[in-house]
Amino acid sequence: MKKFAQTKRTTLKRLPKRGVYDRELINAILDEGFICHVGFVVESQPFVIPTGYARVDEQLLIHGSQASRMLRSLAQGIDVCVTVTLLDALVLARSAFHHSINYRSVVIFGQATVVTEREAKLAALRALSEHMIPGRWDEVRRPSEQELKATSVLALPLLEASAKVRTGPPIDDEEDYQLSVWAGLVPLRLQAGDPIADPRLPQGIAVPNYARDYQRSRPRD
Amino acid sequence: MKKFAQTKRTTLKRLPKRGVYDRELINAILDEGFICHVGFVVESQPFVIPTGYARVDEQLLIHGSQASRMLRSLAQGIDVCVTVTLLDALVLARSAFHHSINYRSVVIFGQATVVTEREAKLAALRALSEHMIPGRWDEVRRPSEQELKATSVLALPLLEASAKVRTGPPIDDEEDYQLSVWAGLVPLRLQAGDPIADPRLPQGIAVPNYARDYQRSRPRD
Repeated sequence: MKKFAQTKRTTLKRLPKRGVYDRELINAILDEGFICHVGFVVESQPFVIPTGYARVDEQLLIHGSQASRMLRSLAQGIDVCVTVTLLDALVLARSAFHHSINYRSVVIFGQATVVTEREAKLAALRALSEHMIPGRWDEVRRPSEQELKATSVLALPLLEASAKVRTGPPIDDEEDYQLSVWAGLVPLRLQAGDPIADPRLPQGIAVPNYARDYQRSRPRD
Repeated sequence: MKKFAQTKRTTLKRLPKRGVYDRELINAILDEGFICHVGFVVESQPFVIPTGYARVDEQLLIHGSQASRMLRSLAQGIDVCVTVTLLDALVLARSAFHHSINYRSVVIFGQATVVTEREAKLAALRALSEHMIPGRWDEVRRPSEQELKATSVLALPLLEASAKVRTGPPIDDEEDYQLSVWAGLVPLRLQAGDPIADPRLPQGIAVPNYARDYQRSRPRD
């Protein structure tokens, strides 16, 4: 399946040209980000909670403590909305009205299921680790049986998803282009700084390359 | 009021030491961020939509097209959950289990109201502009009456809010500190790049300082 079916929930009401259902684009956004905002409803009240995630094939994985209110709620198979947002630029137009933000976001609707089988759970935790910081998993102590039990992993199938993307320069009203106002983009990106060693780290343990050169892949069009 | 009352919804179930109700801290997080994720429910289905915002005193302002599904839904006074998340660092522990993320997030519950009065609406749009990029408003063409009419502004009172914060190095199990694994933080920040002029910008209009030196204030503790 190359494209997601357009459903009532994923059909954009406004600016439909910004809405896309292309699976490759959606996957690229999900793979560049690593924090999502999970929306769910408990007793009519919406909650929006940030959490890490990883995409594996056509599933979005999230994890957390078994005691987590969010994970316990989602484990019941309730409706969820997961949103991933990447900020690309501030868009400075000549009029206040046409200011905007260049961004790429994905919204996913569905119901999550609990990953219970031991090997699948371990594979999911590895994927979550590798998605956050590739190369790390092979160097660290793996989860003990007790830690595995204390961790919940949920999988949300990527069945109903859409992306919304704004790119390019500001679009001003034609008569405003003559104004003597600077216009253009202020690019934004999530930038990693120099790693900071744990105060309890013994001398002589070098910073690994994956930490020193950390960046989120950001394919540019 | 220096602190928010702790309510059932804002009481953290897990890791309560990470939950804070201090108004100054909550305001500092809201003032550093400029994108929130708005959660709301339509026909039992949760939606989570990213959008810009500004805080003015004890209100969070959002805006958008009058045709926006989200704004039209919120204008009805339904329950909303607005979350702002700032990422500070990847936390690399010696065990997979204790990996984490340093972040600061705020969750707000409430119902929004529509800002209808012309001067209040204009002041809100100015605040939204100045929150995104201070100094810009005074240089650009102000909204026309038609643009004002096409724009909805909503105000969410900051009555029920909580912050969640993780800072500091990884916390490993005591026996893992002897492992020969690098541990520490990979700092993250939203970084602005060199401004990119609109292709239609005439020669001789300099990049304003507020664009060239753009950064989100980030007080450090």
